[in-house]
Amino acid sequence: MSQHRIGRQTVAFPMAPTILSSAAVVGPKEGRGPYGDHFDLVIPDALYNQESYEQAEHAIFLEACSRCMKKAQLQPKDVQAMLGGDLLNQIMAASLSARELSIPFLGLYGACSTMAESLLLGAILTDGGYASPVLCAAGSHFCTAERQYRFPLEYGNQRTPAAQWTVTGAGACMLSHQGKGLARIHLATIGAVIDMGVKDANNMGAAMAPAAADTLAAHFRDTGRAPADYDRIITGDLGQVGSSILKELMIEKHYPLSDEQYLDCGLLIFDPHEDIHAGGSGCGCSASILSAHILPKIKSGEWKRVLFMATGALLSPTTTQQGESIPGVAHALVLEGDS
Amino acid sequence: MSQHRIGRQTVAFPMAPTILSSAAVVGPKEGRGPYGDHFDLVIPDALYNQESYEQAEHAIFLEACSRCMKKAQLQPKDVQAMLGGDLLNQIMAASLSARELSIPFLGLYGACSTMAESLLLGAILTDGGYASPVLCAAGSHFCTAERQYRFPLEYGNQRTPAAQWTVTGAGACMLSHQGKGLARIHLATIGAVIDMGVKDANNMGAAMAPAAADTLAAHFRDTGRAPADYDRIITGDLGQVGSSILKELMIEKHYPLSDEQYLDCGLLIFDPHEDIHAGGSGCGCSASILSAHILPKIKSGEWKRVLFMATGALLSPTTTQQGESIPGVAHALVLEGDS
Repeated sequence: MSQHRIGRQTVAFPMAPTILSSAAVVGPKEGRGPYGDHFDLVIPDALYNQESYEQAEHAIFLEACSRCMKKAQLQPKDVQAMLGGDLLNQIMAASLSARELSIPFLGLYGACSTMAESLLLGAILTDGGYASPVLCAAGSHFCTAERQYRFPLEYGNQRTPAAQWTVTGAGACMLSHQGKGLARIHLATIGAVIDMGVKDANNMGAAMAPAAADTLAAHFRDTGRAPADYDRIITGDLGQVGSSILKELMIEKHYPLSDEQYLDCGLLIFDPHEDIHAGGSGCGCSASILSAHILPKIKSGEWKRVLFMATGALLSPTTTQQGESIPGVAHALVLEGDS
Repeated sequence: MSQHRIGRQTVAFPMAPTILSSAAVVGPKEGRGPYGDHFDLVIPDALYNQESYEQAEHAIFLEACSRCMKKAQLQPKDVQAMLGGDLLNQIMAASLSARELSIPFLGLYGACSTMAESLLLGAILTDGGYASPVLCAAGSHFCTAERQYRFPLEYGNQRTPAAQWTVTGAGACMLSHQGKGLARIHLATIGAVIDMGVKDANNMGAAMAPAAADTLAAHFRDTGRAPADYDRIITGDLGQVGSSILKELMIEKHYPLSDEQYLDCGLLIFDPHEDIHAGGSGCGCSASILSAHILPKIKSGEWKRVLFMATGALLSPTTTQQGESIPGVAHALVLEGDS
């Protein structure tokens, strides 16, 4: 039995790695949302002085990483590993950013769960004494995600009511085994891939909710905890449809979530009057809200203990076109104040 | 300073996690190669009873994982984590296999370096006491890779002399902190992303060789070792072009590699009389040769200490079409006999 393992899916971090700093860079629509003033940078337009949306996604990712390093007063040469990914094919935003930074790089793909996956693996590297500090990052871009997963914007397709709006943005966190930071990571629950047969690429909330429920229930089962042990339980980007399904599933699993306690980054990030349908999505959604809203609330002491769980829909246009259903995955992290 | 860190890029594993078992499943062309008898299964044709090449890639990946578990006498419920990836968009072969196996899953993307990346992170999870046993796997398929990165096979484009042939195959290894296995992992060197400006998606060996040289030099610098400390130094899939460049670069870096000592999985896997041009490539290349050739040689004691370094070309069709150059990455592992 592994010494830091709790139950089937949960790992404990005896050193409780600290998040030294974080940064978030987002697009203009996100900037007009309720947390607009809390992001480190709101870019003026979706191209951000680049020649393509893909290049813009790369530039946003790199900017979030650079600002995170600067806030921790670290140079790239001081950072022992970088873990991250994005939604672009072959995680190019993360890979090209790693090229510019020259930090030893481990590329991840967890769809919209990538920010939690990078923090989970980053915490293992840091806690175990294999690397510290470690830069963890994730990002996405509305215009590239639409082109890649659905239709190019130029096609002008009509979005369905269940569709979510991919966040243009990136978030980064610097993990360390020492120093005082914004929050500490105490536990993590690694998600299994869950598939309830949803085949609609425009309803990712429904595809991800069963995975979120599975990881949440595993977390409570492994740790012997209950929802009441957390000030907030925050999912990544289930949106309106997925959040409702998650709440129903958690009642069935005998771990009901209260409305005050349960939040979803996809329902927080945009002004609801914008044309976003079921809410925000994308790796950048939970990554940017983590930095702009969740970590500050923990740092201030308002929230003592938070369960942060980013959720990912594991689909590709090819598998969807071939009739494959959309599996989901969700990884959870227990964040507490660094006092 | 992290306690298990050596130099800028290398980590040490005090427990030296053991590779309990391995398995490789490959396509017919690979089966006709010199290691045809050493693979666990050679599928009769590229479709493997599926309706698409993508489904076949998934089936091959799952088969390699299942056979690896069976050889270690483990059920999916006994395995504490699965780490892996492939070349399909959104690593669908790995994700769908994780769905079928219901093992807590962390998706990786390192292009053709993925087998080394999964073993590196798997060794950290195992060595640090966060998960054991851990299933590490990677795979690729010629027909899906051609469709995704270059042209669909139906187009019948002519391949350039520098082009490599993506291996149809998958390999899996089971890591554990206890038990006696095929080999042990003592050290790993995490690669940085290196880009020397190659823009030709048909010459991935040239794009990857500088990253391979960078990681090799970092490994020797971090550890104070030299090439002579290894019975074999084996790269993943540099092919003829990339291997030649690597040998030149290592002379420049004052760590020359001897012809007897240096091998490349991409130059081993196929019968040279097949129409493969510069050699094999793909995640499945190093993953399957590791299982079918490298681990047995270490197990038998013929090779005492091997540096296994899988190399990845971090490109996407989109970035290539937008004129972006192709960065490379390479991760290295020190494998020794488990005696």
